Amino acid sequence: MTELKSIASPAIQMEDRAHEADHPSSLVAKFGTEQPLKLDCGVDLAPFQIAYQTYGELNADRSNAILICHALTGDQHVFNTHPITGKPGWWDTMVGPGLPLDTSQYFIICSNVIGGCMGSTGPASTNPATGKPWGLDFPIITIPDMVRAQAMLIDRLGITTLLSVVGGSMGGMQVLQWTAAYPDRVFSALPIACATRHSAQNIAFHELGRQAIMADPDWHGGRYVDHGSHPHRGLAVARMAGHITYLSDAALHRKFGRRMQDRDLPTFSFDADFQVESYLRYQGSSFVERFDANSYLYLTRAMDYFDIAADHGDVLAKAFKGIKTRFCVVSFTSDWLFPTSESRALVHALNASSARVSFAEIETDRGHDAFLLDVPEFFDIARGFLQSAGRARGLKSGG
Amino acid sequence: MTELKSIASPAIQMEDRAHEADHPSSLVAKFGTEQPLKLDCGVDLAPFQIAYQTYGELNADRSNAILICHALTGDQHVFNTHPITGKPGWWDTMVGPGLPLDTSQYFIICSNVIGGCMGSTGPASTNPATGKPWGLDFPIITIPDMVRAQAMLIDRLGITTLLSVVGGSMGGMQVLQWTAAYPDRVFSALPIACATRHSAQNIAFHELGRQAIMADPDWHGGRYVDHGSHPHRGLAVARMAGHITYLSDAALHRKFGRRMQDRDLPTFSFDADFQVESYLRYQGSSFVERFDANSYLYLTRAMDYFDIAADHGDVLAKAFKGIKTRFCVVSFTSDWLFPTSESRALVHALNASSARVSFAEIETDRGHDAFLLDVPEFFDIARGFLQSAGRARGLKSGG
Repeated sequence: MTELKSIASPAIQMEDRAHEADHPSSLVAKFGTEQPLKLDCGVDLAPFQIAYQTYGELNADRSNAILICHALTGDQHVFNTHPITGKPGWWDTMVGPGLPLDTSQYFIICSNVIGGCMGSTGPASTNPATGKPWGLDFPIITIPDMVRAQAMLIDRLGITTLLSVVGGSMGGMQVLQWTAAYPDRVFSALPIACATRHSAQNIAFHELGRQAIMADPDWHGGRYVDHGSHPHRGLAVARMAGHITYLSDAALHRKFGRRMQDRDLPTFSFDADFQVESYLRYQGSSFVERFDANSYLYLTRAMDYFDIAADHGDVLAKAFKGIKTRFCVVSFTSDWLFPTSESRALVHALNASSARVSFAEIETDRGHDAFLLDVPEFFDIARGFLQSAGRARGLKSGG
Repeated sequence: MTELKSIASPAIQMEDRAHEADHPSSLVAKFGTEQPLKLDCGVDLAPFQIAYQTYGELNADRSNAILICHALTGDQHVFNTHPITGKPGWWDTMVGPGLPLDTSQYFIICSNVIGGCMGSTGPASTNPATGKPWGLDFPIITIPDMVRAQAMLIDRLGITTLLSVVGGSMGGMQVLQWTAAYPDRVFSALPIACATRHSAQNIAFHELGRQAIMADPDWHGGRYVDHGSHPHRGLAVARMAGHITYLSDAALHRKFGRRMQDRDLPTFSFDADFQVESYLRYQGSSFVERFDANSYLYLTRAMDYFDIAADHGDVLAKAFKGIKTRFCVVSFTSDWLFPTSESRALVHALNASSARVSFAEIETDRGHDAFLLDVPEFFDIARGFLQSAGRARGLKSGG
């Protein structure tokens, strides 16, 4: 069956990925045993490292730093060629000279999350106790753990208060966690297409992806590197499930409808007759080249566990009590993974906390993925919000 | 990892399933080489058989017969104990004495679809040319092929015109195909929670399920019976994907929310911490005991290909031109697999064809699955519609 080949690319960069996990093509902040990362599960993780990229220059009074938090399958390579795929940075529409996250004006930082696979310590990293990849011996991490690690990086960089923390989807969760955990260190916050907790439907989609990975015999209980394998088929299926949730029904209809792939009539076979099938197969097979299957398990789990209100007696407003951070909450009308109602609930809680908040519900049919796409209204809002925050903090426009 | 066991039940009834495919615990209509089933793909399928169940009595003038068309994972066991699972019939809330599909009044027929695995000829049946299961040598079938086979069964039963054809989801597609292909043989039609074509998003979900099955090494290119295996892990993942689409976000939230399974605090592991995870794992593992993986491939493909308008110059109304059948179209407000807008488009086309049509858009948060659940408003509408059709056809109330 040719179908199997379509999601089982032979070009998996296993060695490249393994190398990146320990020796990233990035800046690296290393933390020794005297500076453990205190995880929510009770484990002190040490030593550990954080891989990160920066763009632009930190100004003299260290007031122009913006932290970007990446999404589930993102990484620190926001605005440079990706070291494994060779593709452009994942947010080069938003970050760059003259763009809303203006690298000629701001000092932009993005770090790979703890649990990731691009150089921050995670299940693909070498466990110093064994000399082999951590695999499932890596402790379960949470969104607060990711943010705690980022705060240690920001300390290391000598920055007390960030001009802004910005991110979409899982990145938006981190933005919110930053404001809840370190309100005095976040001058402004731009959470995009996210929620303060993961819904049952979102947990269900993640569980589907995890089961697809763990059902792949090449997963070997997470010890696939020892077996010279990678559960690329299960991971590709997990990615396909994710991709369906990132697009709206309308976007899928507009992009593909029921159009056939290079043919006019059905083949009466299990070939990818429809364009949407080819698209999903491609998304699955290209993803497995760059991403680690165990990382996918850990990061989806972290998102599932996320629930800010739960740590505050189930009253969301308490999480933001007395906060001075300026918020701009952005949602997209056709996002069904993080529906705009979730953002509205967040805005209500912020209002109840007397926080400064603006809310932009952007009309688009492009679904959750809109935060990664060229959506001019969104760009204008982000630009204006950051410029306004910069002015309030005494930044001169233009750097 | 205990997780794997949860979707890899050891109690798979492989022999029971194989036996049912050829020798069903049902009535069987056999068609020899002189009566081939003419398939859309160009193949003449012969010999073939249709497994079916009947409930109630056919009246003297053969005017009280109702055909139920089952959904993707349904079968002919509507109102009797299932021969493999031992569970009650799948629609025993709707079918039975005094129920809307009243077995004391109507003669109810339900046949396993062509391509299914419960006794009608499909990929799990023995290919007479090889003495082994058809597997992927079975020709691709379509919704019109299923209906063509059902019409041959109805001929065999000596019934010219059905009082009604009733079905939800893939069953609803068959109902619509019946009215388009055999308008004079369908006195009334009750298509529920369906559409006249499969959307790009629906094709995407099906493709995800197929890739999960085909990625399972136990699938063996569809020849798993020869290997004494069954791709139960891939099929379970496919089923999990299906189940997410059958429930609404609201229904998942009401049923499970973020509630934990038999615990108060997270385990910080990949165990099924959340109830929704346990539920999905159970749905996956119980499904593989009764269903054939290749059948799942064929039936999802048939749904993907379905597009009534495409056969009528892309003008849906033409499919129903001059039709005398009485329609009652039913949709559920929270069904996002077959949104109510699809039913409304169907109703508009029927109106444009001057067909007799009533439309019930039922307010419920239970999602697509509502057609299988205890929804009193839906039952009342079905009961009233069928009674009215019976009166119009001269049936005495009560039999």
